[in-house]
Amino acid sequence: MKIAVDAMGGDRAPAEIVRGATMAAMNNVGAEIVLVGRKREIEPNMADVKPGTPISVHHADQVVQMNEPPIVALRNKRNSSITRSVALLRSGSVDAVVSAGNTGAVVACAMLMAKKLEGVKRPGIAVPFPTDTEKGICIIIDAGANLKCKPINLLQYGVMGRVYSEHVIGVENPRVALVNVGAEDAKGNSLVKESRGLLKDANINFVGSVEGQDLFKGACDVAVCEGFVGNVILKVAEGMGEAMLRWLKAGVKSYIAGGGDKAVAEALFSKQNVLGNYSEYGGAPLLGIDGVCIICHGRSDANAIHNAIKVAQKVVEKRVNERITEHMKALGLRWRLSRFFDRDADKQSGKRE
Amino acid sequence: MKIAVDAMGGDRAPAEIVRGATMAAMNNVGAEIVLVGRKREIEPNMADVKPGTPISVHHADQVVQMNEPPIVALRNKRNSSITRSVALLRSGSVDAVVSAGNTGAVVACAMLMAKKLEGVKRPGIAVPFPTDTEKGICIIIDAGANLKCKPINLLQYGVMGRVYSEHVIGVENPRVALVNVGAEDAKGNSLVKESRGLLKDANINFVGSVEGQDLFKGACDVAVCEGFVGNVILKVAEGMGEAMLRWLKAGVKSYIAGGGDKAVAEALFSKQNVLGNYSEYGGAPLLGIDGVCIICHGRSDANAIHNAIKVAQKVVEKRVNERITEHMKALGLRWRLSRFFDRDADKQSGKRE
Repeated sequence: MKIAVDAMGGDRAPAEIVRGATMAAMNNVGAEIVLVGRKREIEPNMADVKPGTPISVHHADQVVQMNEPPIVALRNKRNSSITRSVALLRSGSVDAVVSAGNTGAVVACAMLMAKKLEGVKRPGIAVPFPTDTEKGICIIIDAGANLKCKPINLLQYGVMGRVYSEHVIGVENPRVALVNVGAEDAKGNSLVKESRGLLKDANINFVGSVEGQDLFKGACDVAVCEGFVGNVILKVAEGMGEAMLRWLKAGVKSYIAGGGDKAVAEALFSKQNVLGNYSEYGGAPLLGIDGVCIICHGRSDANAIHNAIKVAQKVVEKRVNERITEHMKALGLRWRLSRFFDRDADKQSGKRE
Repeated sequence: MKIAVDAMGGDRAPAEIVRGATMAAMNNVGAEIVLVGRKREIEPNMADVKPGTPISVHHADQVVQMNEPPIVALRNKRNSSITRSVALLRSGSVDAVVSAGNTGAVVACAMLMAKKLEGVKRPGIAVPFPTDTEKGICIIIDAGANLKCKPINLLQYGVMGRVYSEHVIGVENPRVALVNVGAEDAKGNSLVKESRGLLKDANINFVGSVEGQDLFKGACDVAVCEGFVGNVILKVAEGMGEAMLRWLKAGVKSYIAGGGDKAVAEALFSKQNVLGNYSEYGGAPLLGIDGVCIICHGRSDANAIHNAIKVAQKVVEKRVNERITEHMKALGLRWRLSRFFDRDADKQSGKRE
């Protein structure tokens, strides 16, 4: 299995990216790493790599900056590490791509260049969201690939998220829910109301609606929403976390100013304590494309990149895409049968396909 | 000025509600309080009220439970404290209503029974959202009154939120922004893109798009979004706050188990330190109705109710509704002029009215 790693993407590129990729190449049996980017900037970071380690460099001359408008970057930089990585995926030269680069550019590039899986209408970004420390991970899908969704998109996100949660996160019979403004069936906008019927009939473990605060309590394993909403959820959670850290710091300051013990305060208020292992979940896959694309946070360090490579490897090994395609076929069959036998079901769901 | 207070609404009703209302009646010069609800449950809580205090009871026999589906409650309980309070507002017997009851029921009741202000298409809930402790309050509008919005709704929310921020929160020339998934103009769904043009032309201090994390950093004073998104933002922030408290508690536990000083840990990790004065902003107004309706959190105590009454009083005194109506007229004129002089502007904005 070959995994392309965008060596130029991320706040700490290329040094930390190369270090993470090297760790993966030395430790992950079966994964061959292709570092994509500027040879002259990558190779100085590879001095420690032992001969025979399954890692190589694929040269790409251009770099998409982290704050560059994605569409401009894709139009003007056809030889960027992002574009070249996705081209390797499209041609079948690699099985997966891992990037901590400009998220918008990576997603746009993969959406435009990669093929879609058979039956999938629109790919979606599946972000692993930490819930309670005991209860684990909730997959939020879509986190921004598809800002404006139709019910069929949310149905497919539910199915794809479920496959990912079961086979990659390791949740048995994952509970799929719709993000909504209330728990009752009467609540919600028309998108939520129409999608609810489709998800109920989809033979996945659909548990109804969840509200924003339920996401943190482990109320579901897969939370389905349109990209605009998913993106807002993640950014609000991130913003709230950072704001609380700032408030805590102010508390610590006044505690120390009042004669408190600095060491005690700092130990207690460590970021680790406050945010748990909030940002160590190895990246978010773009589900629904033919191939594997894992998007990492811009501030990823070597460990995060190593984790993301392990996730990419797992997605390939667990045949996530084949499973998604099977589900899509089953959904399509169910759909056609329901249209044939049941005019009511047709009225409710078919018209939106 | 008369203010109706829903004495039966809220987790701590009627005792804390009556206590808060009594505090207001004794301290707020010029406000006469009408407690709405079951006389026999309210009056035992009024033993301390001095004769001559401007507070009275308006009997209403039914109580809407906090978890009751709003529509069912409104249909079956025509004599509830919520319905009676809004009826008093509609008839002009009171100037404002304050309720910590079932939020959905209060909003639905006010939307159905109260008149709209002239020119307002859809009322919106304006929630004061704490940003950094130094930087103050951001108004999020709409927080759930209007789940599915058109551009004209977002434009009007911007205008109403601006009036509220300036005259009630006290912000000079408030910065109005659209909640979006990125800062650039190319980003966003069609609602955001179409609303942006309208807000730019509205002669308010429109500063463009903000993302979820910016809300906490004081990037704007009024954040405009459709009700579905606003509701999700508030609930995610609440859920994230609660989750971080749980994580902190786990940290404290292990600190104490490791021989740490319990008193130190508890002092440092007080809820006050962590969440600041996160929940003490005196309720959220439903803007755009003829009259004043302040919605409080279900867990409001006497202080919160007292604060909400002060806010209601300020909204009346500052003539917020008159100002909104003036702005709506100006917008309408601008609109008609633009339709007359500029066919392009007409194409972009007029068709959605």
